[in-house]
Amino acid sequence: MKVIKKILQMQKVADEARCAGRKVGFVPTMGYLHKGHLSLIRQARQLSELVVVSIFVNPTQFGPHEDYQNYPRDLSRDAKLLRQVGCDILFLPSVEEMYPQGYCSYVDVENLTQLLCGASRPSHFRGVATVVTKLFNIVKPHLAVFGQKDAQQAFVIRRMVTDLNQDLEIVVAPTIREPDGLAMSSRNEYLTPQERADALVLYQALKWAHEQIVEGQRNIEYLVQGMTKMIQNKKTAQIDYISFVDTEKLHSLKRLEGEVLIALAVKFGRARLIDNLLIKV
Amino acid sequence: MKVIKKILQMQKVADEARCAGRKVGFVPTMGYLHKGHLSLIRQARQLSELVVVSIFVNPTQFGPHEDYQNYPRDLSRDAKLLRQVGCDILFLPSVEEMYPQGYCSYVDVENLTQLLCGASRPSHFRGVATVVTKLFNIVKPHLAVFGQKDAQQAFVIRRMVTDLNQDLEIVVAPTIREPDGLAMSSRNEYLTPQERADALVLYQALKWAHEQIVEGQRNIEYLVQGMTKMIQNKKTAQIDYISFVDTEKLHSLKRLEGEVLIALAVKFGRARLIDNLLIKV
Repeated sequence: MKVIKKILQMQKVADEARCAGRKVGFVPTMGYLHKGHLSLIRQARQLSELVVVSIFVNPTQFGPHEDYQNYPRDLSRDAKLLRQVGCDILFLPSVEEMYPQGYCSYVDVENLTQLLCGASRPSHFRGVATVVTKLFNIVKPHLAVFGQKDAQQAFVIRRMVTDLNQDLEIVVAPTIREPDGLAMSSRNEYLTPQERADALVLYQALKWAHEQIVEGQRNIEYLVQGMTKMIQNKKTAQIDYISFVDTEKLHSLKRLEGEVLIALAVKFGRARLIDNLLIKV
Repeated sequence: MKVIKKILQMQKVADEARCAGRKVGFVPTMGYLHKGHLSLIRQARQLSELVVVSIFVNPTQFGPHEDYQNYPRDLSRDAKLLRQVGCDILFLPSVEEMYPQGYCSYVDVENLTQLLCGASRPSHFRGVATVVTKLFNIVKPHLAVFGQKDAQQAFVIRRMVTDLNQDLEIVVAPTIREPDGLAMSSRNEYLTPQERADALVLYQALKWAHEQIVEGQRNIEYLVQGMTKMIQNKKTAQIDYISFVDTEKLHSLKRLEGEVLIALAVKFGRARLIDNLLIKV
């Protein structure tokens, strides 16, 4: 595995690969890799000939009181995992390389970024859209793989790629879970044993709602109330949102029909966790 | 000359040219070409092997009460001129092709777009940065040529290209003027004979300020007042701004030193005209 830290070198290597007819697959990450990331990289490995993974803890997607400084980092473990899973190039830029003095350009995806996580993290998706645009311009991939766990992020990126004519395919890979159902996340690291046990309720609540719908329940208010009760039952849980939204504009649904995203964000101590289910009604 | 109307076809042709080792030069325009545009295209012709010119009157860079509907258009004359000057590909997308339903992604270059023309045209540069980003992603050029006449636009594009790691070179070509000094612009078309005569004062005022500086004048207030008097002397002129700014942040200067951009915008009837001089003090 080759490690590239400089933008110009990465662009040069990408150009060479493209012109040699090699399909470039890309997985952008913030590091502290878990099985969720590894499944994205395996997917990129299957779909492409040159696999590039970036590790960059992007400051502009963290709010002023969020966990940028404390976000977990372990580069040597990450590098080992990347080698095991068949990554060809690790792109590892510094903050100064990515945001030089005088930096002032941003990408906004307006309609999809005000709701759900955008409501409590107002500049988060602007930071994500901007850094992903930069990374696409640097890595020049034919395809990039994102996780379904960050459902809203995947929608925002898809919309941005379409709107700005970024010439690549976005692949969304399924959420990977711990054996007991908790969605994999680097932020699970923050959980105390009690919070870790309580956090199981997220997937349980999603599954309960899904089962109810399969059994014919169509009352969204009833489902949200049921999920709220289940989650509030856990002492360490603080609900940010529980939403049933359409999969085009991510607007709250009045009726359960078609493709439905059930999404939630809940705080457990220092960890703000998200999870979701994408279902067909 | 080949005419391409579809984004996917343009991207394919661009990829093929790049991988065949042909340098792609690009000149984005809104059509109604004049000698200023043609000089940009000649410059692209000299610097590259495949010259792409786009004609697209971009609705998102016009304000609600501006001249989008009435912006002059003459495609058959434009096509003839493009052939004469050695354009290889005319990229000619429709508004629907560029802004499909649900479009909601925009590029903002924050620090450079609030002042000068940005003050009276608040969403103009957002529209410009967005459409130029799209066109760069579609045409995939090695270099793009912009005119010094639109000085602020050139600064904004340069900053955006650096910030977002768009992998191309920006070339800025000198302003082309009518024999009597008026800067070439598609909007000169709007001028009545009286306004056309009055509009000469723009370049005269710029030259007067430059001469004063060469002779040792360093008082910006004195220079602005002198230029204001010259322009206000013309009945049909309505000044938007006259500014002396630095060439990094486009901020108003307190002292005349280093690289200085003297920029102005003045309305003559329906036509809002801009002009500038870039000087070293």
